[in-house]
Amino acid sequence: MVSGIPVTIKTSAKINSIEQSEDNISEHEFSPGKKQGLYEAIYKRRDMRHFITKPIDPEKLGRILDAAHHAGSVGYMQPWNFLVITDPAVKNKIALNFKNANEEAAQKFSGDRQKLYNSLKLEGIQDAPVNICVTCDRTRFGPNVLGRSTVFETDLFSTCCAVQNLWLAARAEGIAVGWVSILSHDQLKEDLDIPDHIQPVAYLCIGHTEAFYSKPMLETAGWAQRLPVEKLIYYNKWQGTPTDFKVYFPDSTKND
Amino acid sequence: MVSGIPVTIKTSAKINSIEQSEDNISEHEFSPGKKQGLYEAIYKRRDMRHFITKPIDPEKLGRILDAAHHAGSVGYMQPWNFLVITDPAVKNKIALNFKNANEEAAQKFSGDRQKLYNSLKLEGIQDAPVNICVTCDRTRFGPNVLGRSTVFETDLFSTCCAVQNLWLAARAEGIAVGWVSILSHDQLKEDLDIPDHIQPVAYLCIGHTEAFYSKPMLETAGWAQRLPVEKLIYYNKWQGTPTDFKVYFPDSTKND
Repeated sequence: MVSGIPVTIKTSAKINSIEQSEDNISEHEFSPGKKQGLYEAIYKRRDMRHFITKPIDPEKLGRILDAAHHAGSVGYMQPWNFLVITDPAVKNKIALNFKNANEEAAQKFSGDRQKLYNSLKLEGIQDAPVNICVTCDRTRFGPNVLGRSTVFETDLFSTCCAVQNLWLAARAEGIAVGWVSILSHDQLKEDLDIPDHIQPVAYLCIGHTEAFYSKPMLETAGWAQRLPVEKLIYYNKWQGTPTDFKVYFPDSTKND
Repeated sequence: MVSGIPVTIKTSAKINSIEQSEDNISEHEFSPGKKQGLYEAIYKRRDMRHFITKPIDPEKLGRILDAAHHAGSVGYMQPWNFLVITDPAVKNKIALNFKNANEEAAQKFSGDRQKLYNSLKLEGIQDAPVNICVTCDRTRFGPNVLGRSTVFETDLFSTCCAVQNLWLAARAEGIAVGWVSILSHDQLKEDLDIPDHIQPVAYLCIGHTEAFYSKPMLETAGWAQRLPVEKLIYYNKWQGTPTDFKVYFPDSTKND
């Protein structure tokens, strides 16, 4: 390392700073233009809830699923499946599942926080032309999968990597993705005929949008703020939990 | 949807096909060049075990950590921390942890499969100039986090999305990343002073490399093959487990 401080964060620079390094590209490094494509997908990706009815080009959908499939997986187990849902009757069942789970979730908050919670749009199940349930096959190529001897959950972890690939590819294709996490997974399995050994990981609403949010919706709504990344980086060992995180989540102490 | 078959997979086209769509870009869609940057990162990303000693530019490391930090997180909880490890004494402890866990893991396989397993290089802990342990704070802003009412593991899922962002950003920067999943996480927590409520999710080896693998190492070594993505996509409900997956993992039946 160059010094005792091996990480330099220049968050204000971000995407634009990439272009300045054009004349000093090391081997294996992408050109500034390609790098910018990746970083724009990363920084402009949003968890979206607003969709328009415009259909999705099947080739684009194929590309984003193939991108998901090219995530890393422990032991190369590729434990995912993608249930592509377009049937309105199925979507209606999932929307009801959300409604029930969300009414229960709202009770966890009180006062102004509950009022704010109830004002948030937290799903786009029926609005989005396509829903995708990403699942994890807990038995694929088991019981002994290379790299899974100590941490059984590496199959779930791998599946989440696929979700992030899908999300980024969709952003580059101009397609919005919203993760609906407020669902009873038991009910979801029943509604989608998913057997016991398959675990739903992510339920995604997918479609075109009028506009991508410029900031995360929960930031715009005043629910939460982005943490300063510098406070999340430690050196060589754990260095305690910063006590001032509540500054960034002003209402977190009132959550219970 | 255009037809009853909403997904068209053109895997052979992949990256190069992107350039052909230049004259028909919809709103919000990235330019073909930027899209290519993202797709190249996705398709050329590898789980790497071979590193050279060349140090990592601190600004690059900052960029890849900031990319990780911009993953989506359920309820905007941002539950991750990044422990950046460069101290050789700490690395030695982790390498010993791996050695012990790997000797045990090898016993799960037998015959030729065990011989092949033992020939694989499955970590680069001491070779890589930087190791990063990505952790998940299971209590951050809890107990009631928006979107986590039904699925408690959404904090772990979010952390994995951050890992995938890190991996892709590193690829674009020309930096190799290898996930070491064969570790006792109890021992890892002890060696890194990680308290009970913090869960290690990924232990990553990070550094420059002579060459990125052209295919996943486990494919080149004959351990496993990539599944055909078409067989992983279902419509509107679960459609059973294909019985011919073993064709793609020829030795999977001998795993136990």
